[in-house]
Amino acid sequence: MMIVRLPPPWALLHRPNTAVRVFSLLTSPPSTAVVYDEHGPPDAVCKVKELPPVRIKDDDVCVRLLAAPINPSDINRIQGVYPVRPPLPAVGGYEGVGEVHSIGSAVKGLSPGDWVIPSPPSSGTWQTYVVKDQNVWHKIEKSTPMEYAASITVNPLTALRMLEDFVDLKPGDAVVQNGATSIVGQCLVQLARVRGIRSINIIRDRAGSDEAKEKLINLGADQVFTESQLEVKNVKSLLADVPEPALGFNCVGGNAASLVLKFLKQGGTMVTYGGMSKKPITVSTSSFIFKDLSLRGFWLQKWMSSDKAKECRVMIDYLLSLARESKLTYEMELVAFNEFQSALDKALGKLGSQPKQVIKF
Amino acid sequence: MMIVRLPPPWALLHRPNTAVRVFSLLTSPPSTAVVYDEHGPPDAVCKVKELPPVRIKDDDVCVRLLAAPINPSDINRIQGVYPVRPPLPAVGGYEGVGEVHSIGSAVKGLSPGDWVIPSPPSSGTWQTYVVKDQNVWHKIEKSTPMEYAASITVNPLTALRMLEDFVDLKPGDAVVQNGATSIVGQCLVQLARVRGIRSINIIRDRAGSDEAKEKLINLGADQVFTESQLEVKNVKSLLADVPEPALGFNCVGGNAASLVLKFLKQGGTMVTYGGMSKKPITVSTSSFIFKDLSLRGFWLQKWMSSDKAKECRVMIDYLLSLARESKLTYEMELVAFNEFQSALDKALGKLGSQPKQVIKF
Repeated sequence: MMIVRLPPPWALLHRPNTAVRVFSLLTSPPSTAVVYDEHGPPDAVCKVKELPPVRIKDDDVCVRLLAAPINPSDINRIQGVYPVRPPLPAVGGYEGVGEVHSIGSAVKGLSPGDWVIPSPPSSGTWQTYVVKDQNVWHKIEKSTPMEYAASITVNPLTALRMLEDFVDLKPGDAVVQNGATSIVGQCLVQLARVRGIRSINIIRDRAGSDEAKEKLINLGADQVFTESQLEVKNVKSLLADVPEPALGFNCVGGNAASLVLKFLKQGGTMVTYGGMSKKPITVSTSSFIFKDLSLRGFWLQKWMSSDKAKECRVMIDYLLSLARESKLTYEMELVAFNEFQSALDKALGKLGSQPKQVIKF
Repeated sequence: MMIVRLPPPWALLHRPNTAVRVFSLLTSPPSTAVVYDEHGPPDAVCKVKELPPVRIKDDDVCVRLLAAPINPSDINRIQGVYPVRPPLPAVGGYEGVGEVHSIGSAVKGLSPGDWVIPSPPSSGTWQTYVVKDQNVWHKIEKSTPMEYAASITVNPLTALRMLEDFVDLKPGDAVVQNGATSIVGQCLVQLARVRGIRSINIIRDRAGSDEAKEKLINLGADQVFTESQLEVKNVKSLLADVPEPALGFNCVGGNAASLVLKFLKQGGTMVTYGGMSKKPITVSTSSFIFKDLSLRGFWLQKWMSSDKAKECRVMIDYLLSLARESKLTYEMELVAFNEFQSALDKALGKLGSQPKQVIKF
């Protein structure tokens, strides 16, 4: 990893919209950015580069990034395996929080010093300065913990939408999920609890699973099982006073997905949003015909491209308010930008299980 | 198989409702019925017995059965593997057509000689006389071919509902299905054609598959492929001018279900209504997340128990009108009741591929 100073053509990357406009004297500071020229292993293709200043047009806002997380989907974009990817060369990152540094002459409602997040999120948050149209930016309360402001969309909003969009749940109802220790999983437990919805949680068998159980219980989980604890004839006999769930979430696949299906009640729905085991989902014919199960999928990026940008911000404000009240918490590690490579290694799983890595600029 | 004459307790079977009522002189003729006392292999547990006459109450209609099919679900009920089954001992069969033989004093709108079908269907059509409340019976046109009147609900109505209930299809749209030579499959081809919807059909590789293809094309199929023809990198390259289907039907499972999924367009739905291969359905994570597929199931018996009885009769009339106009056809073999055992053997697949067996009383 090295810092290189780039010639003007890089401005194309930093600011792809080069439509001819009235010349403006206002420019951004140079930006230090995590850039990849080609798809491949993130630790090989990502380079920290300095990008030259770019013009700030009348409707533009220049934001100094404060923090941005490394999400699995960021890694998949760099690897080239994500279905929607920015054109190359690209700056990494998709969400984050920043402070308004300077604004174009036509910008309304934002002033230098304001905290903003790109909403819906957009590519290129792994850099020190970003210039984008004012419509991109959503002002948030500065009392929000920085790491939550940086990471509020990709995982917590996924959890919120999945809880709202598939089954009409009422207080006292239950949901079931695997991969419960994931950030989305932890958010689901807490967002369900806020609505009086109970959660049944499935986690992997591994060293430390007792500790993981305890953490989930502390977040508000009603029940937590390791997969091996569910090797029983009828998993529903374990439900005790928790009702059969009408909605389940799968981010693992394989046996862990089958366990979610087993818990679901007649007519229930399982929503898949990840495949951590890299194994497919296998379902019996009778689950569809006689148990009337529905299997669906959820992809936040698609959801946000569907006319939901405004609704999205209302939900983000709700999630941020929960974060400020500590009703929504999850483990993160703030890492200085100059330690990006080490944060990336942790995010890539090279050092075992680690908290969510959030770069602090 | 033998004919046995039973003592009065059998009346309990023939007419389970024994509530005390004003004595009536009207009774049914004795009924010759296919009865099973226990679940098991149908050819072992089914016996033809004579059931004694039963009283015809004021609201009752006594129907002389004309014809009734042997459906796979009838066989599963006798085997005891179907989730909803009549109490034992039971008379076989679930749909059929009959002629009104005699009516109770309070019956309105039905007269001796009328043709009727039980709608929604109900257990016990494999016998010569059935007595049930007037609400059970739906009068149909006597110009309907008897074998279609007998078999119009279980398979054709499944096809019609699956085409209507999951995706809003417009003329020019396409559907894809496996098991296309099944009765439901043949009905789907024809009902789709009536609505201007195109069909992509997948059949097994077997001796006679060319002939099966030709038959489906003659029914109105747009494309017919054997599974081995679909061992290509991109099945959609085979679509020619047929659009990508938004709706698929699966009655096979295993590879044949995966092929249906491959044909589906982004956001498409696959409905499972059978599992002839006895193999489960396997789906990749990305099919749910990035291709946004939905997997559902359909079970006519559940659908009909959901307040749809009235709507059901309108649809039955529509299907019967198509049958009278030969716009809905499928192969059947009418077999005399005294050859029931041989018809059962054919329905059980003991004699290879055979047309749908319909008992003629």
